[in-house]
Amino acid sequence: MVKLVSTLGTSPGGVFETFMNLRQGNYEADNPVPVDVKVVYVIRTSDPAVERAFRLLKAIFACCGGRDVEVVGIPLNMNDINSRSDYIQFRREVLSRISSEDYVDFTGGRKAMSVAAVMAARQREAHVITSIIPQSDYNEIQNRMKNFRDEDISAGERGECRVDFCTLTSRNVKTILLE
Amino acid sequence: MVKLVSTLGTSPGGVFETFMNLRQGNYEADNPVPVDVKVVYVIRTSDPAVERAFRLLKAIFACCGGRDVEVVGIPLNMNDINSRSDYIQFRREVLSRISSEDYVDFTGGRKAMSVAAVMAARQREAHVITSIIPQSDYNEIQNRMKNFRDEDISAGERGECRVDFCTLTSRNVKTILLE
Repeated sequence: MVKLVSTLGTSPGGVFETFMNLRQGNYEADNPVPVDVKVVYVIRTSDPAVERAFRLLKAIFACCGGRDVEVVGIPLNMNDINSRSDYIQFRREVLSRISSEDYVDFTGGRKAMSVAAVMAARQREAHVITSIIPQSDYNEIQNRMKNFRDEDISAGERGECRVDFCTLTSRNVKTILLE
Repeated sequence: MVKLVSTLGTSPGGVFETFMNLRQGNYEADNPVPVDVKVVYVIRTSDPAVERAFRLLKAIFACCGGRDVEVVGIPLNMNDINSRSDYIQFRREVLSRISSEDYVDFTGGRKAMSVAAVMAARQREAHVITSIIPQSDYNEIQNRMKNFRDEDISAGERGECRVDFCTLTSRNVKTILLE
């Protein structure tokens, strides 16, 4: 069973877009084929803004076409990678979740997280993938995110789509398989 | 001869700070020792803001304690990593510059550049290092950068330090050896 293992920062859309594009075979690669991802592991810190992004991400999956997928959060007990031991813990966590057929997506989160994740991917000889979003779309979506109310997000996580969570995704994303 | 191979974005300070901390043995590692770096390769895109950051970086080296070091720019013919072939080119460029005793610093530049650089480092079994700067210092320095005039930067590159380029570095940076 193929897994997508994604790092998450404050912006949830990238994880969903990588997932959708992977599932549809809509990505740049030598031979892009649809990949039937059934589980998404989301490795993230305990920063409150990242916690909120994760809840929005679950709502996006529930309301925008990923209801048949299990989205599993892996919260780590750190606010960011601030030390060597944070890095080692982050890298080890990714490593423990992946095997060679899996896809590691470093679109979300801060740079050291991306590096920890792809180093783990490399060690397992797993795939490495990312999505590129135009800066203007990114900024617009970051602004939109502020307007979602807590109770609507909670409902969204349960699959009650009272508001349009799909406005937190972009149509102009390009997904690239790198390794 | 040990080299530092750094990616560069729009902020020059990080490369200099990694260099200084490496040279002084002032970094987090199992056994931090001073590393006598004599050459710094700066791999960067052709984005005009990145071009300007590179000129500022040369002025910082000339005026803030790195005059005995050769700073070599490696401009790539792209504005960002926007495709698989950009990624491959970036990764290959880093790979061609490093051997196992070298240090690859991914502090500067965008996330896909960091990933390309550390993947190359991993392949060569070179070291991977980064510097972390508090967000408030980063923002302040990005603002300060705007005030430097072109002619002063040109003079700084030649070692004429008419203005204080060292204000583009932070005292609160932490450098970490990751691999």
